Amino acid sequence: MDWRPGACSIAGVGATEFSKSSGRSVLALATEASVAAIADAGMAVADIDGIVRCEEDSVLHNDLSHCLGLPELNYWGSTASGGSAPCGMVAQAVAAVTAGLARSVLVFRALNGRSGPRYGRAKGARRPVGGNGSLEEFISPYGLVTPGQVWAMVAQRHMIEFDTTREHLGAIALACRERANANPAAEMFDRSMIMDDYLQARPISRPLGLFDFCQETDGACAVVVTSTERANDGPSPAAAIQSVAQASADDIQGAMFSPAVFRRDLTTQPSANVADTLYRRAGLGPADIDVAQFYDCFTITVLVQLEDYGFAPKGEGGPFAACGALGMDGSLPINTAGGNLSEGYIHGLNHIVEGVKQIRGTSTSQVEGAEVSLVTSGLPPATSAMILTGATR
Amino acid sequence: MDWRPGACSIAGVGATEFSKSSGRSVLALATEASVAAIADAGMAVADIDGIVRCEEDSVLHNDLSHCLGLPELNYWGSTASGGSAPCGMVAQAVAAVTAGLARSVLVFRALNGRSGPRYGRAKGARRPVGGNGSLEEFISPYGLVTPGQVWAMVAQRHMIEFDTTREHLGAIALACRERANANPAAEMFDRSMIMDDYLQARPISRPLGLFDFCQETDGACAVVVTSTERANDGPSPAAAIQSVAQASADDIQGAMFSPAVFRRDLTTQPSANVADTLYRRAGLGPADIDVAQFYDCFTITVLVQLEDYGFAPKGEGGPFAACGALGMDGSLPINTAGGNLSEGYIHGLNHIVEGVKQIRGTSTSQVEGAEVSLVTSGLPPATSAMILTGATR
Repeated sequence: MDWRPGACSIAGVGATEFSKSSGRSVLALATEASVAAIADAGMAVADIDGIVRCEEDSVLHNDLSHCLGLPELNYWGSTASGGSAPCGMVAQAVAAVTAGLARSVLVFRALNGRSGPRYGRAKGARRPVGGNGSLEEFISPYGLVTPGQVWAMVAQRHMIEFDTTREHLGAIALACRERANANPAAEMFDRSMIMDDYLQARPISRPLGLFDFCQETDGACAVVVTSTERANDGPSPAAAIQSVAQASADDIQGAMFSPAVFRRDLTTQPSANVADTLYRRAGLGPADIDVAQFYDCFTITVLVQLEDYGFAPKGEGGPFAACGALGMDGSLPINTAGGNLSEGYIHGLNHIVEGVKQIRGTSTSQVEGAEVSLVTSGLPPATSAMILTGATR
Repeated sequence: MDWRPGACSIAGVGATEFSKSSGRSVLALATEASVAAIADAGMAVADIDGIVRCEEDSVLHNDLSHCLGLPELNYWGSTASGGSAPCGMVAQAVAAVTAGLARSVLVFRALNGRSGPRYGRAKGARRPVGGNGSLEEFISPYGLVTPGQVWAMVAQRHMIEFDTTREHLGAIALACRERANANPAAEMFDRSMIMDDYLQARPISRPLGLFDFCQETDGACAVVVTSTERANDGPSPAAAIQSVAQASADDIQGAMFSPAVFRRDLTTQPSANVADTLYRRAGLGPADIDVAQFYDCFTITVLVQLEDYGFAPKGEGGPFAACGALGMDGSLPINTAGGNLSEGYIHGLNHIVEGVKQIRGTSTSQVEGAEVSLVTSGLPPATSAMILTGATR
């Protein structure tokens, strides 16, 4: 049974405001974004009969179904983990629609990521030995306890091996910030930044500083996945899913902190595995991509992906980023809503919303004539990604 | 996009021993059952490129992938909740194969359900108001804190409305026990039981007594889902998935303890919703079912399903069970390995393994000439179910 490029589409997108303190429950946020996405698709609530969520979301499928008032819920599922999930959630929705298990599937992510539980902090031991226990057994005792520390090691390694510089990473941070400055919905909309600001910001985990770290955000995003035929009935141009893929490397175990991160070549991540599958399914390659939304929990994750997805040769992600390629006049405009770094941290589902807007031509930083839109989700311990195009009406 | 009956099959099944103390990690159990299922399918580990798990499983997809040594993991996902998940996990695997996201998908459930964390006990408050908080807000304060108590209320209501008796429930417990007595792998293999034993057992939550409650088990089960074409290359007869469905009712919110359980007609559960979809997809009805594996966390869940799946008219599940219908000479032999009540509690994935064996003709309580095999998973807050037949070679 073969992948069918473009058979399914994203018919609607929705989002709440992004803030530091939403003042409402995560369930309320999820419901608001979902209602917006359903309306944007030109659908009624009763058209939705499937829900896919992120495993880490505190909102359960039946809670959301109840709040929306879905008369029937014929499919539900989830995937993991965290930032690696969003495009995989879309993949699962596509599969459910393709197999005839559901007609139209809501995919959402909601979190009070600043006023509620915050990601990126040190966690205590939670799992027994023999489970996902690498963190507690082998890493925490040495003081390596946050994602920022892990990615700092990756950045350091990239600097050692390829002469990557802080300015290279700064080019990524600035590209995201400049796009956020054009996006009134972005958390950093009114906060401009120049390279000196970036370089002089306080270090958090060397070589990463304040502006290498993403936002912490209260908010939610949702998208509606359905058949392209059905999506074409909607009021907005359908964003056809030419390809979507998940991939994990063979030596990745456990979460981001796994010893596997230290066993393998630190500067190549599972994004390299997903890229092959992604491009093969679409029958497209890096040269076909007009605009990209890269998962950017840290600047260094974008740099690594520039190489893993084939936009820059191995080791040359830094110079590629610094030459202006990532700006609106460059060869590969990225994170055109501002990304996790400057728009907000909806764990990467906001990247999908923006990827759709580029296909519709409605981004606040619209890439002229954008026909092929890449979206990526997370990196270790595994990752997912998607290529969108306009649907043939 | 329409459901395609029989396009995918279960090609392999595997299980560990079922015990009260496995003496090994949940990950070790999951790996053992998975290796057995892959071998049973006549596959190599490298043939597996997808994994679907239960959200509650402590084993993560990448942990299992690593332990098995999968060279590629191209799909992973999960579903919820608990006993409602297994057939839904198969549905998700079918969808992934149908959409071309994976070739062959491993579906597993592993737990140290007796020596480790035990289900069915009272839990403390875990979620905030506005999330899945019904338990803490509205139910726990009144002392209703375990699944057994919830199902006791359902049983009591059924007794009040339909003159259902303890003997009716006992007929279900005895049917499961008799099948377990024929199954050397069942936890209750050497523990025979007669109606007097059942009736005289100590009450746990009236009207439910000791033998209305399922086992608590250490163990794991796994099955391999792939295209029927590929499954037909294997050494064992493929069990074709004629239908698989998930369904949730419109007024169900939160978990089993939800106020919704008390809002709706207590004696009709979401299994009534899934049955319609299930039969429609298969083009079959209750009269076509030769053998059934009903999810049986408690005897009363089977009784309710006899009605919800159309084997007995509403309110007559009790007399139907007590007339001998559920035995080997009856019209609907059930839980032929012993079920959760007497084989072991692998949260319902063991029901799928047994459902496949009936199609293969290899059950320890084989129903002669069984051609259509029903498997159900859980009940509230939502449920899933599956119909298997022999595949056309």
